[in-house]
Amino acid sequence: MCRWLAYSGAPILLLDVLYGGPNSLVDQSLKSRLGAEPTNGDGFGVGWYGAADTPGVFRSTEPAWNDQNLRELAGHISSPLFFTHIRAAIGSAVQQTNCHPFRHGSWLFMHNGYINEFATIKRDVVLAIDPSLYPQIQGQADTEFLFHLALTFGLQDDPPAAVEQAIGLVEDVAERHGVPHPFQGTVATTDGESIWGFRYSSERNSRSLFYTTDVPTLRKLYPERELFQEVSEDARLVVSEPLGDVAGVWNEVPESSWGVVGPGHEGSGIRQFRPKAPPASASVPG
Amino acid sequence: MCRWLAYSGAPILLLDVLYGGPNSLVDQSLKSRLGAEPTNGDGFGVGWYGAADTPGVFRSTEPAWNDQNLRELAGHISSPLFFTHIRAAIGSAVQQTNCHPFRHGSWLFMHNGYINEFATIKRDVVLAIDPSLYPQIQGQADTEFLFHLALTFGLQDDPPAAVEQAIGLVEDVAERHGVPHPFQGTVATTDGESIWGFRYSSERNSRSLFYTTDVPTLRKLYPERELFQEVSEDARLVVSEPLGDVAGVWNEVPESSWGVVGPGHEGSGIRQFRPKAPPASASVPG
Amino acid sequence: MCRWLAYSGAPILLLDVLYGGPNSLVDQSLKSRLGAEPTNGDGFGVGWYGAADTPGVFRSTEPAWNDQNLRELAGHISSPLFFTHIRAAIGSAVQQTNCHPFRHGSWLFMHNGYINEFATIKRDVVLAIDPSLYPQIQGQADTEFLFHLALTFGLQDDPPAAVEQAIGLVEDVAERHGVPHPFQGTVATTDGESIWGFRYSSERNSRSLFYTTDVPTLRKLYPERELFQEVSEDARLVVSEPLGDVAGVWNEVPESSWGVVGPGHEGSGIRQFRPKAPPASASVPG
Amino acid sequence: MCRWLAYSGAPILLLDVLYGGPNSLVDQSLKSRLGAEPTNGDGFGVGWYGAADTPGVFRSTEPAWNDQNLRELAGHISSPLFFTHIRAAIGSAVQQTNCHPFRHGSWLFMHNGYINEFATIKRDVVLAIDPSLYPQIQGQADTEFLFHLALTFGLQDDPPAAVEQAIGLVEDVAERHGVPHPFQGTVATTDGESIWGFRYSSERNSRSLFYTTDVPTLRKLYPERELFQEVSEDARLVVSEPLGDVAGVWNEVPESSWGVVGPGHEGSGIRQFRPKAPPASASVPG
Repeated sequence: MCRWLAYSGAPILLLDVLYGGPNSLVDQSLKSRLGAEPTNGDGFGVGWYGAADTPGVFRSTEPAWNDQNLRELAGHISSPLFFTHIRAAIGSAVQQTNCHPFRHGSWLFMHNGYINEFATIKRDVVLAIDPSLYPQIQGQADTEFLFHLALTFGLQDDPPAAVEQAIGLVEDVAERHGVPHPFQGTVATTDGESIWGFRYSSERNSRSLFYTTDVPTLRKLYPERELFQEVSEDARLVVSEPLGDVAGVWNEVPESSWGVVGPGHEGSGIRQFRPKAPPASASVPG
Repeated sequence: MCRWLAYSGAPILLLDVLYGGPNSLVDQSLKSRLGAEPTNGDGFGVGWYGAADTPGVFRSTEPAWNDQNLRELAGHISSPLFFTHIRAAIGSAVQQTNCHPFRHGSWLFMHNGYINEFATIKRDVVLAIDPSLYPQIQGQADTEFLFHLALTFGLQDDPPAAVEQAIGLVEDVAERHGVPHPFQGTVATTDGESIWGFRYSSERNSRSLFYTTDVPTLRKLYPERELFQEVSEDARLVVSEPLGDVAGVWNEVPESSWGVVGPGHEGSGIRQFRPKAPPASASVPG
Repeated sequence: MCRWLAYSGAPILLLDVLYGGPNSLVDQSLKSRLGAEPTNGDGFGVGWYGAADTPGVFRSTEPAWNDQNLRELAGHISSPLFFTHIRAAIGSAVQQTNCHPFRHGSWLFMHNGYINEFATIKRDVVLAIDPSLYPQIQGQADTEFLFHLALTFGLQDDPPAAVEQAIGLVEDVAERHGVPHPFQGTVATTDGESIWGFRYSSERNSRSLFYTTDVPTLRKLYPERELFQEVSEDARLVVSEPLGDVAGVWNEVPESSWGVVGPGHEGSGIRQFRPKAPPASASVPG
Repeated sequence: MCRWLAYSGAPILLLDVLYGGPNSLVDQSLKSRLGAEPTNGDGFGVGWYGAADTPGVFRSTEPAWNDQNLRELAGHISSPLFFTHIRAAIGSAVQQTNCHPFRHGSWLFMHNGYINEFATIKRDVVLAIDPSLYPQIQGQADTEFLFHLALTFGLQDDPPAAVEQAIGLVEDVAERHGVPHPFQGTVATTDGESIWGFRYSSERNSRSLFYTTDVPTLRKLYPERELFQEVSEDARLVVSEPLGDVAGVWNEVPESSWGVVGPGHEGSGIRQFRPKAPPASASVPG
């Protein structure tokens, strides 16, 4: 059911976060602790920001644990903000176009979870997507359609409101088709500066989501730990499950809530997530 | 722009048709003579009928010329009816779900050519596809959508009429969007018994299509050629370009026409192909 | 550390053995019960005998559990004798040329286990391989080198003696290099008629190996089970771990022993396996 | 038979050199002008130097022209020195471990051409490779063995002498086996600071090799060309065939010669290449 990781802070090698440690993301591809399924071997993706205007995206259909190119790139690419996702496919094919993160201009989007019985509601979801955005969809993953719904509803202006509308529309369409528990999961999106993280499921029993304690606090807690001295003061990880076991590092995002990390958002706190079906739902033709 | 081959007759090894000879299909993947582009290296597919109810489909994103598995399977699978397709991708990703032939139940469908500016008309095409068929589309290739249009219009009952309607609808939608020359190409479809071949383009300048002379005639022409003695009396190949240079073997299907090969269709001749927009076009919502 | 399966009997669809049931081989690729590692997702291979003189071999680097082509082929290929192997890579790259089974003429060979510190002794192993066989090695897997050692020592004439010499040589070379516990595993080889299975490790703590009870006995034990009525009287499976839980079906091959299944070998029993370093070891140049 | 490109100068995006222009390297993967075969679609590789001690290497078995990851990386990786290679496989499998460039510590090595009848002489080549280096060979490409021969003969101390000895040994072994025309091609190697380029074939009819005129001269020749103003003064490309058609930019390396580009090598000129069989050839055991 996928695992993911988002980093923001001073530029670091991807390797430092993806490999090593007792429960690294690459380890989770073979055996995760909290995932709905232990193995996340159906491809992976990395999206990273650097010198270019848009983030780079590297995606592969191989398991992360045995992908030599991932190890090479992780050892040679430094970035101040990156997303990594390992996939346990549900329903859609194992192909690069179904690997997260998905990109639109300077935005990235990834998801752990699913839209329930997506085949049943897919056509109505397509109808609700802005016709000028629809042709840009490259794959078949439910998440890519969710992303384009959120773009339709203004993700680039107000991410939380857009994601609430996107999931609200999914729930609305699902209800009309009699599909139970339409949405499950955690979502991350970024414009290259801030990272928004969402935890929600229609049945209020969502996949886990964690973020790291601020670095100044960690330095006080663990003055002897070199790692906390080396990372930047503003460094943050948002993850679907903790990478290690150090007490005080990982904070769980509560059920049905969202948060944002990045410049200008310090101390903004965790807020409630409430799906909102778009007014006069665009999804009902005729 | 792709090349393809369809065989019907007594069971033969795929190897006998795909490899060897002066312009074999696998040779055409590296260098075709009549293709719009010489190289057709963006994956391939094989669909074959055997003991099972539905045909088997083997697809790969590798160039056919260097795919070891294709050579193995071709050397070990015999079939009385098979489709093979090599791809030169235009627009859609190189992934197995975009490789021809496409399958629905016991039917196969493949295409050399394109729907012009497919992104522009894709949404309207989706709206015209039977909602119960739409979720079965696995990839992004224009051909898979065309196939599902044809299924919507009754391919399984009357293939020529359904393909005429499917292409008619594409031309109709394209005209409304101002897309010129909407359809180009040759199409083959089969139910496992008969093979229908179509040659048509909106600009009446279609990709080439050929079929073989009946075997009894070839045996009279070339009494000394072992190959013509070995193949069955009813053996036929339908191809996007001739596999060899033997005079009298290959017959070109004329512009804007179609034909059918198989039991009960002997002497049915070549007929005119006329796209027909479906009455009260289902593609105009609201 | 890999899992494998060998079938001999009346022709059956590969699907009937590879998929379905409580612990099918494809299930074992995601989660095996007895494997040294639960996940065997580093590619797989199938070798099957049919009409051709040599067996077909289909290999892929994708996990078996998500390989669409494997499912297609398994559902359309029937065979009276086939090998299937799923891989957990140790040391050598995930690539088709490292996937089992390996083939030489009409022979197949596969292995669950490893040669310890193979890099250390590889050069001496190469020197011991018949120079005319050496160029035929296509990959880097320790097993392919072991296979060519066994061919060098007469596998095609006397398989048990050749495998005993091959592993004997490996132990001999390892001892000279100070490599402990040089060989571990189970091996299967076939000429297309009989299947030889070996269980051995230098430390006498070998991976598991099982074979099925003869079908007449199973029919008496379970007269109501359709499956046992459908399979042929001479059908046998040899596997690295049982596919299901039915009592009386699976028999463990004891430590350090071998057996053979096939026409003319009925009642031949399990025999002891004793590695024998080749006389005047060819592996010591200079 | 492969095409390759080496760049040295101020850091530039790989994209600026690999894509665009009338005969870019990626264009050459589909259709090269001077290659022994026009299509170089059997995988590719990129090796680049950056912040890490060793260069990064990204390799893929897909044709470069349709590899989405190559385009992403090329658009996001800047480097002061990189190698790129597109492959037309001869004999060895299409797999990442056979893709150039090959790496040893901080060194890269790539080749356009072949060792004739490599299977015949491979065992003797293996015997001539330093036993401590031999286990590091990952694939089956003749070039990787040549690279390890050159490492054996001191590539890291004196690259031209080591390559002369490596090719000398190949010619020596080939002569003993009656293999004609043993070596063909162009070779590039680098330590991350200088690039050595070699052009040689046993029959004195070698694949082409070109390097760019120094930038100050190009600026005088073409004062209005922005590109020549943008690149650094010390920028150089070494290529198997010219990327464009601008007069005065490309200089052919003559038959049987070598040159070096990099700091401290200005004006060092082109020198003769003379293979030298190693004294008391290590390749003859017993």
